[in-house]
Amino acid sequence: MPATRLDTARIRAAPRMIDSVFLDSPLYRCEALEAVLGCAVSIKLETANPVRSFKGRGTELVAGLLAENGPRAAVCASAGNLGQALAWSGRGRGLDVTVVASRFASTAKLDRIRALDARLELVDGDFDMARERAAAIARHDGIRLVEDSLDIETCEGAATIGLELADAAPSFDAVLIALGGGALATGVGHVLKTLAPEVEVICVQPAGAPAMTRSWHRRRVVTTESTDTIADGVAGRRPIPDVLDDLLLVADDAVLVEEGSIIAGMRMLLDHAGLVVEPSAALGVAAILEDRARFAGRHVVTVVCGGNVDMEAYHRWIRRP
Amino acid sequence: MPATRLDTARIRAAPRMIDSVFLDSPLYRCEALEAVLGCAVSIKLETANPVRSFKGRGTELVAGLLAENGPRAAVCASAGNLGQALAWSGRGRGLDVTVVASRFASTAKLDRIRALDARLELVDGDFDMARERAAAIARHDGIRLVEDSLDIETCEGAATIGLELADAAPSFDAVLIALGGGALATGVGHVLKTLAPEVEVICVQPAGAPAMTRSWHRRRVVTTESTDTIADGVAGRRPIPDVLDDLLLVADDAVLVEEGSIIAGMRMLLDHAGLVVEPSAALGVAAILEDRARFAGRHVVTVVCGGNVDMEAYHRWIRRP
Repeated sequence: MPATRLDTARIRAAPRMIDSVFLDSPLYRCEALEAVLGCAVSIKLETANPVRSFKGRGTELVAGLLAENGPRAAVCASAGNLGQALAWSGRGRGLDVTVVASRFASTAKLDRIRALDARLELVDGDFDMARERAAAIARHDGIRLVEDSLDIETCEGAATIGLELADAAPSFDAVLIALGGGALATGVGHVLKTLAPEVEVICVQPAGAPAMTRSWHRRRVVTTESTDTIADGVAGRRPIPDVLDDLLLVADDAVLVEEGSIIAGMRMLLDHAGLVVEPSAALGVAAILEDRARFAGRHVVTVVCGGNVDMEAYHRWIRRP
Repeated sequence: MPATRLDTARIRAAPRMIDSVFLDSPLYRCEALEAVLGCAVSIKLETANPVRSFKGRGTELVAGLLAENGPRAAVCASAGNLGQALAWSGRGRGLDVTVVASRFASTAKLDRIRALDARLELVDGDFDMARERAAAIARHDGIRLVEDSLDIETCEGAATIGLELADAAPSFDAVLIALGGGALATGVGHVLKTLAPEVEVICVQPAGAPAMTRSWHRRRVVTTESTDTIADGVAGRRPIPDVLDDLLLVADDAVLVEEGSIIAGMRMLLDHAGLVVEPSAALGVAAILEDRARFAGRHVVTVVCGGNVDMEAYHRWIRRP
C-alpha cells in the first residue's frame, strides 16, 4: 500500500457520506471507439450527475464534515467544476459557499455556480491567482478554505472512483487520468495501487500546462510562468508539494499531449461514443492517439471526468478541419 | 396491480439475468434544463452502456433464456437499437443473431449491428415490412423470432427501469416515456402503476407516427398507411393488440408532438444537459415544450432512451435556425 496522505479505510467509508447520485457511475466498453483507437477502451463516465463532473464526490465529503462540526461557510478557488460541486453540496446542507474564479473561466461553469446560489468572485488573472484570493478571503472571514487536491477530502472523494474501478479490475490493464492539481490522479492512483497494483496508472496533462507532469518527472516541484491550453480544468502553474509527493508514490507515468490531440479526442468521443466532454475529459483519448503503439491490444480505462463546456467554444473546437 | 401480461415478480428477478452494465443507470436532476422548461426535470439516462439504448435490458433476458434452453439462433426486426442490443447479448452467449432492418435505417445503428457480428438483412421498406421478413426467416429457419414489445422479455427488461424509478418515487410527479411499439411504456408503466401508482405515466409519440397513440385514445388498434418522423426508433404503423391492451391498463395519457419540438428537445438536451440523444429520446422534453402549463412546477422524469444517431443528420438537426 503506498504511503500517501490518503487512507484506504476512510476511502472505503466515504461513499456513506456522498450522495448516491455521484456514485457507481457508468463503466462500459465502447467498441465504436476501439475500432479507431486500436485498443480496448472502457469509459468511466463522471458527467451524468447534477454537476457534470467527478468533483461532487469530494465536495460531498467536505460539506458533510462542515455540516457536522465546522464553520457554516466555505470558500474555494475553482476553474469551475469544484466551485459548482461545492455550491451543490453546500446548498443541500445550508452552507454559505463562495467561489473565486478567473474571469476567463468557462461561462457555462460560472453560470452554473451562480445558479446554485453560491457567491461568485472573479479575479483578473488565472487559477493560481484565484487560489491566492480564496486564501485571503478565508483568512479574513474565518471560514473554511477548500483547497482542491491539497485537502484530503477532495482526493479521497475522487478516490471512490478508484474503488469502483478496482471492483472491475483486473479486467483492464491501464487507467488514463486527467492530471491537474492532482486530486483525481492521487485518489484513483492510491486505490488502484492498493487494490489492483498491476493496473498501470497513467496521468495525462496538456503540453500547454505541464507543471505537475514536469514535477513528477523531476521528482521536485516545477512551476511555469503561464499556461496555454483549452483544458481549463487542469491548467495550473504551481503544483502543491504534498500532492506531488503522493503522485510520486502512485503514478506509473505522466505524459503530455498536444492541443490538437485533445480536440481530436473530444471529436472522437462525440462521434463514436456520443459524449459531449470538456477538454480535460478528452486527455485520455488524446494520450492514446499520441502513442497508439503503447496501448495496442491492451484494455484501457479512461475517466471522462467532466462535461461542462461552453457550447459555442465546443462547436468551434469540434468543427471539421 | 394492473392485470397486464407483465409479472412483477419476474421483473424483480430480471436484474439477476441482465448484465450489470445495463442496470442502475444514472437518474439525476438537471437544473440547467429546468430554467428553460419551467418544471423540475430528472433524467433517467439509458445511453451510457455498450449499445447506447435501454434495449439491452430486454435482450439480456431474451438471450439468457435462449442460452439456457432454446434454439441457439434468433432473428428480430429492428429500427436499429433492438438489433444492436440483441447482437450484443447474443454474441456474449454464442448465439447466432440475424437482424432485419429497413435500408432507410440509421447508418450508425446498422454499422454497429454489423460490428457486433450479427447477420444483417435489409428490406426495401419500413420497420413493419422488416417485421414481416423477420417472421418469415424465423419460420423458414426454425429459429427464435424476437418480437419487440410483443415478447414479454422485451417489456419486462424495460420494466427494470421502472423498478429503478420506483426506488426514487414519490420524489417525482410524472414520467415521460417514448412510445413506439410499447415495450418501454408498458414495462415502466406496469411497475410504476404497481409500486408508485400516484406517478403519472405519460407516453409521447411523434405526430408523424401516431398509430399507437391514436389506438390508445380510441381503445382499439388503429394503423396508419405511413410514418413521417425523424424519430426512427418509434416509427411503427401497426400496433400489436396485446401491447395496446397492456398500455390501456398502465398509461395515464398518450400525447403527440411535432417534429419541430423533437428537434428543439434534442437541442436543449445538448445545450443544457450535454447529452447527445436520438430523436426518440427527446420526445419527453418535446412534450414539456408543447404543454408547459401542464408541467409547470411539477417534477418530471424523462427517460433518455437512446443515443444512436447518425452524426451528420444530428448536426443538421441541431444547427441553429
